[in-house]
Amino acid sequence: MTDRVYIEDVFQHKIPDGSDVILRGWLYNKRSSGKLLFLLVRDGTAVIQATVYKPGVSAEIFETADKLTQEASLTVIGKIKKDERAPGGYELQVTDVKLIGQSVDFPITPKEHGPEFLMDYRHLWLRSKNQHAILRVRHTIIKAIRDFFDGRGFTLVDTPIFTPAACEGTSTLFETDYFDTKAFLTQSGQLYAEAGALALGKVYCFGPTFRAEKSKTRRHLTEFWMVEPEVAFNELKENMELAEDFIEYIVQTVLRTRVEELKTLGRDTTKLQNVRAPFPKIHYDEAVKILEDAGLKFEYGNDFGSPDETAISEKFDRPVIVHHYPSAIKAFYMKRDPNEPDKALAMDVLAPEGYGEIIGGSQREDNYDMLVSRIKEHNLPMEAFDWYLDLRKYGSVPHSGFGLGVERTVAWICGLQHVRETIPFARMIHRLKP
Amino acid sequence: MTDRVYIEDVFQHKIPDGSDVILRGWLYNKRSSGKLLFLLVRDGTAVIQATVYKPGVSAEIFETADKLTQEASLTVIGKIKKDERAPGGYELQVTDVKLIGQSVDFPITPKEHGPEFLMDYRHLWLRSKNQHAILRVRHTIIKAIRDFFDGRGFTLVDTPIFTPAACEGTSTLFETDYFDTKAFLTQSGQLYAEAGALALGKVYCFGPTFRAEKSKTRRHLTEFWMVEPEVAFNELKENMELAEDFIEYIVQTVLRTRVEELKTLGRDTTKLQNVRAPFPKIHYDEAVKILEDAGLKFEYGNDFGSPDETAISEKFDRPVIVHHYPSAIKAFYMKRDPNEPDKALAMDVLAPEGYGEIIGGSQREDNYDMLVSRIKEHNLPMEAFDWYLDLRKYGSVPHSGFGLGVERTVAWICGLQHVRETIPFARMIHRLKP
Repeated sequence: MTDRVYIEDVFQHKIPDGSDVILRGWLYNKRSSGKLLFLLVRDGTAVIQATVYKPGVSAEIFETADKLTQEASLTVIGKIKKDERAPGGYELQVTDVKLIGQSVDFPITPKEHGPEFLMDYRHLWLRSKNQHAILRVRHTIIKAIRDFFDGRGFTLVDTPIFTPAACEGTSTLFETDYFDTKAFLTQSGQLYAEAGALALGKVYCFGPTFRAEKSKTRRHLTEFWMVEPEVAFNELKENMELAEDFIEYIVQTVLRTRVEELKTLGRDTTKLQNVRAPFPKIHYDEAVKILEDAGLKFEYGNDFGSPDETAISEKFDRPVIVHHYPSAIKAFYMKRDPNEPDKALAMDVLAPEGYGEIIGGSQREDNYDMLVSRIKEHNLPMEAFDWYLDLRKYGSVPHSGFGLGVERTVAWICGLQHVRETIPFARMIHRLKP
Repeated sequence: MTDRVYIEDVFQHKIPDGSDVILRGWLYNKRSSGKLLFLLVRDGTAVIQATVYKPGVSAEIFETADKLTQEASLTVIGKIKKDERAPGGYELQVTDVKLIGQSVDFPITPKEHGPEFLMDYRHLWLRSKNQHAILRVRHTIIKAIRDFFDGRGFTLVDTPIFTPAACEGTSTLFETDYFDTKAFLTQSGQLYAEAGALALGKVYCFGPTFRAEKSKTRRHLTEFWMVEPEVAFNELKENMELAEDFIEYIVQTVLRTRVEELKTLGRDTTKLQNVRAPFPKIHYDEAVKILEDAGLKFEYGNDFGSPDETAISEKFDRPVIVHHYPSAIKAFYMKRDPNEPDKALAMDVLAPEGYGEIIGGSQREDNYDMLVSRIKEHNLPMEAFDWYLDLRKYGSVPHSGFGLGVERTVAWICGLQHVRETIPFARMIHRLKP
């Protein structure tokens, strides 16, 4: 009996050379040379070259193979043969081909298409080699994220999507009718993760988050995945150390396990190899000095814009952590430094090569009265935070955490210009389909 | 220098007996006996008994310890000591105690509280032993789910939360303004996972899903996590086999790694030990026969209600798979059996002990014309499915998948009556806070 196999298993030498096998998949591409027909067959795990030799098969089989069109689905039977020259190191010598499903005028041809066209056909665009590579790297990054925290004894605390109140103001919130009241879609699981950290010590939440931002940039999605660790008794220093170990782990895991995919994407990995802890850590004031020295126009006290972040990160050979941002530009829940009361115990990690902020975090305000003042100063509705204030009422402790955006991390590691390709079905201001 | 340690590491013999250590955590409970004060200290990883011997510490330290209230946060310094009688096998002989944060009148006392009260204080209820056990089992289940698919070469395809159309009708959908249009919150990632399967062969999506169901039962949440694998070329048979292997893997992983937690929850694990593939697989007609034999009132052609599911599952010593449901009661995308055209190639997995359906799945309709008819029959808007129909236009193949609800699985494995405790912050019809 001939077994059905996956191409990936062939390439990983799991199938003995010379085996007769059945492949099921789709026609990726085709070319012919005299009596030979070369079918590039993909089955989702990889692409193999299947060779049909005219004198070796019946006229009927050859005709079936010859008529196959791009993305037709098919069963191919044949013998696998080691061949150094073939992509993947193996080819399939075809003895039989059966068409399963036709594919007439597949919309995405090997020619160039504009990004809007490709996004309209995202459900089919996913079949291309580059998109496979990106999604596999994304998968590896997500797995590395979970493995990192699981391996360090963190407990997963899935935080709610429906929330009764806004964490950082309501202007960019999606809203929905929730029976007889209103609910907002979460922008961050942090406040809930804090409750988790005070219960379970070390926790992380990891799920989709939402921002109704009208900005149409290459770095914004309305729906994106974010992981947020939160650790009881961690202060700013430990928070920065956790962040650098975390990023090192993600990047080195991808470099170790996704070499082929990064090659497919043409990613220059030399700069990724440098991503090793410890990262340089600079005070906000030092970062401002870098901007001044570079001759950039920047007003002290402001947040950094995209060109500022690029100018700062260019000074270093790996990600850089900027800490002690002015409290005035940071969220209400960030603790101020007692020694520098106008600065928050905040930190951002800036990725190299112009990819900007990939992590934002802080030590949290753990004093009840201070937190009440902050909520008032920010004109936030006190009643929405009664439960959150309880965390400072019953056994408050210093604690810290941060958030990492998955899509920006994928864009950086894959070397992509735009985040729209970093998620299977991107959602943006003008994009809700397919 | 004395190191700060986690209690879990002490219990796992990672800290040499007799070491001087620092613990940071909260007071879980306290009792005294003459000159001895027993502090039960929790740090999120476990609970240790810390013994303060009055003659061995200063009067000030003893007073600090004596005045500690439930959930006060504290630093305890002392020597760890192996002690067979102590929970966890170790106790801490205290040399110093420092109060970090007070806790006056912690709302949840060791006495009984009603479920509504506990849910109002969910952010604090999470600190209890049973909730720790449930959340750890939940974490293990989620990790097992991902490990199972990752280990079998599936690619993670995160499907969108915002969707332009309803997968199975609009009556139970949450809706939001999406800039100048409307978006619905997803009830299932399946249609998108199908696009993924035809691109990547074997995929799974795993994220929160939403149902605006008005039902106030112990099995419904408005927001719940669902994992949905989808495999190209799998037919009903392979789909059922994947489901049984999957459930066996989850249950056996929990039994192997979460013994203590299941004991804390008082779970009788004998019935879980039986959860081994293959599962019994019965045709819908056979399931109806079981109901008739049991004397239950049931009209042929209907879907099973909760008492029906219990009656069916009671006949077996492990989960049972029911297949070939009437097509009329199943979703439009389910393929009909060519040999039994009134039946769908659908299958549900029913958990034992009255826990009911935990998996629902099917082979999908892969014929373009048939799918168009189904969409029309179900009065669904054709234009919403143009991209989905493309999957049958360009290289269609047989494919199958299913969905498993995380919270029902956690409830079953933990032996809980109500799903509200299976997720950190449950969302139900009357529950949006905290």
